[in-house]
Amino acid sequence: MTETLTLDASKPLAPGSTIGILGGGQLGRMLALAAARLGLKCHVYDPAPDGPAAEVCAASTTAPWDDEAALRAFAGAVDVVTYEFENVPAASLDLIESLVPIRPGRRALAVSQDRIDEKQFLQDLGLTTAPFAAVDDATTLDAALSKIGAPAILKTRRFGYDGKGQARIMAADEAETALAEMNGAPAILEGFVEFSHEVSVIGARGLDGAVACFDPGENRHQDGILRETTVPARLSAAQRTDAVLLAARILTALDYVGVMGVELFVTPQGLVVNEIAPRVHNSGHWTQDGCLIDQFEQHIRAVAGWPLGDGARHSDVVMENLIGDDVDRVPQIAGTQSAIHLYGKAEARPGRKMGHVNRLTGPVR
Amino acid sequence: MTETLTLDASKPLAPGSTIGILGGGQLGRMLALAAARLGLKCHVYDPAPDGPAAEVCAASTTAPWDDEAALRAFAGAVDVVTYEFENVPAASLDLIESLVPIRPGRRALAVSQDRIDEKQFLQDLGLTTAPFAAVDDATTLDAALSKIGAPAILKTRRFGYDGKGQARIMAADEAETALAEMNGAPAILEGFVEFSHEVSVIGARGLDGAVACFDPGENRHQDGILRETTVPARLSAAQRTDAVLLAARILTALDYVGVMGVELFVTPQGLVVNEIAPRVHNSGHWTQDGCLIDQFEQHIRAVAGWPLGDGARHSDVVMENLIGDDVDRVPQIAGTQSAIHLYGKAEARPGRKMGHVNRLTGPVR
Repeated sequence: MTETLTLDASKPLAPGSTIGILGGGQLGRMLALAAARLGLKCHVYDPAPDGPAAEVCAASTTAPWDDEAALRAFAGAVDVVTYEFENVPAASLDLIESLVPIRPGRRALAVSQDRIDEKQFLQDLGLTTAPFAAVDDATTLDAALSKIGAPAILKTRRFGYDGKGQARIMAADEAETALAEMNGAPAILEGFVEFSHEVSVIGARGLDGAVACFDPGENRHQDGILRETTVPARLSAAQRTDAVLLAARILTALDYVGVMGVELFVTPQGLVVNEIAPRVHNSGHWTQDGCLIDQFEQHIRAVAGWPLGDGARHSDVVMENLIGDDVDRVPQIAGTQSAIHLYGKAEARPGRKMGHVNRLTGPVR
Repeated sequence: MTETLTLDASKPLAPGSTIGILGGGQLGRMLALAAARLGLKCHVYDPAPDGPAAEVCAASTTAPWDDEAALRAFAGAVDVVTYEFENVPAASLDLIESLVPIRPGRRALAVSQDRIDEKQFLQDLGLTTAPFAAVDDATTLDAALSKIGAPAILKTRRFGYDGKGQARIMAADEAETALAEMNGAPAILEGFVEFSHEVSVIGARGLDGAVACFDPGENRHQDGILRETTVPARLSAAQRTDAVLLAARILTALDYVGVMGVELFVTPQGLVVNEIAPRVHNSGHWTQDGCLIDQFEQHIRAVAGWPLGDGARHSDVVMENLIGDDVDRVPQIAGTQSAIHLYGKAEARPGRKMGHVNRLTGPVR
């Protein structure tokens, strides 16, 4: 028995309670805005000052991930902790978790932080992934290429996002160059999947085990960055059901609490899981204007122990990311029939996500 | 010519600019959340600490309305000023306006702060209001009752809201008691209007003169406080057009910039204007979940000099206010198909607006 005050997991957080958010980027900002609608406060923790989230949160902490005093003070000031960023160091999470619950739980984070663990977990669930093999050096890369064949893609096992830490191997003679791009980091070789398009399912699971998934959206990437998500996605009724059931299976297997993004390749042989993200997801931003309850509120409701809300879609939507200079088009976009969401970032660097636009393309048919 | 930096009225505010909000209640809170979506910061000014708005604003000032230094510092820190509360003292507004633009402009405020000026303005526009007469004492009340007849309602000319400062006079012998309730304040006697129901139009006018009105909602009050707004309202197509045109006429006559609430009585003889509020309005809260762009964002867009957004309604909605202890029902409501909006108020006093709930009742037919 411990004397530490802990959250009573059977009780929802009361209005006025505080949710701690690890990571102060745009996802944290939109989580905080959703929490505010429900009368919940947020306290954001981020090593960088002046991130998008802090200016809409009741409190913020700017400190490195290894600042024990700051982590303790943060954990002591909040009722539950969540994250918008899956690469928070394990030691920081250990310390926080000794003081206050973290939702979603550590298992989902551990699985999604390592591409090999993630693919193994998915295969163990009976789901289809790209063929893969671990790569640590030239010898294991050779073996992996023999097993999987080219073309294939070499990725760092950890800390990759938006296409960073990835190198294509179109033929075996490109292996050496690709390996050099890993900078000695442990890697994974993934076989190419022939797919017609990518979709994603944004799934939510409550503290009570209830699962609610949003309609799958269809994603279009450019230079490894999501450009556009369209709902409804091009899927047959059977594929749509498969996609949602598959997401629900992942959420339940992880005893997950919160929102998860599940990226899927659509192939003639069925759906192949590309990757999972244990957090709200860029491909779910359309829900802000297409549903009564969006992915951010769904996540906050789950983390706060509230019942999940009504995620039914009332409209068809196209979500377009505003990347870098795209944000200069905002004055023109403001004059169109679209909802604009900007993240409060001062400087529009190339590749930087500055905001997004949701265009309603009609009522649900 | 002045050297003071002033807003170039021809240019929209750039993302990252700051909007000052006078009044830090729930309307200010929801304005700030809407501004954050657009990448705009807010700075709220309120004499009371810990109001609902401050915790979601980038900056806040707690100071009395007559604190000149605080008002100057506030005006110097923002790019434009708006208000969520129409009873800001004129002297405070004079000082602010000498430093930074106020939107909507002073004329709308002046008209709406005084029930007699407001009714006269509306009649001068050719609109129908209840019959009225100024009352300062027993003599003028007698004269007013002779002209208008009983039943009638005696109200303070200024500073009334949510049914406060009002007394019914069902017969002439109740005049003395009603007058005593005015505590010597200048008053107005208004004749009763026989109406079947009340509707309101939330209208917006941009800096460019464009007008956009939301669909009229039907209001149900209890004890002088709005309980419920239902959209669509019970109105014929002709009445609906009349309501919207009438609101547009008011907005244009005032050279208005921002959102206004116009309350209308529906009578067999046509629409009678009950009152106007030069701000976002409780009866427009349904727009948060029934429209792509809600009344709060529409107001922010107008005040920031952006084009008005798409206020078309995608769903039928019933908005219910959570007043006082109603907020104790939130755990039950969270399990229903509704969107909950709470204002972050710690204490649920009787009659206090704690939040509201929007229930979608179907797609627009």
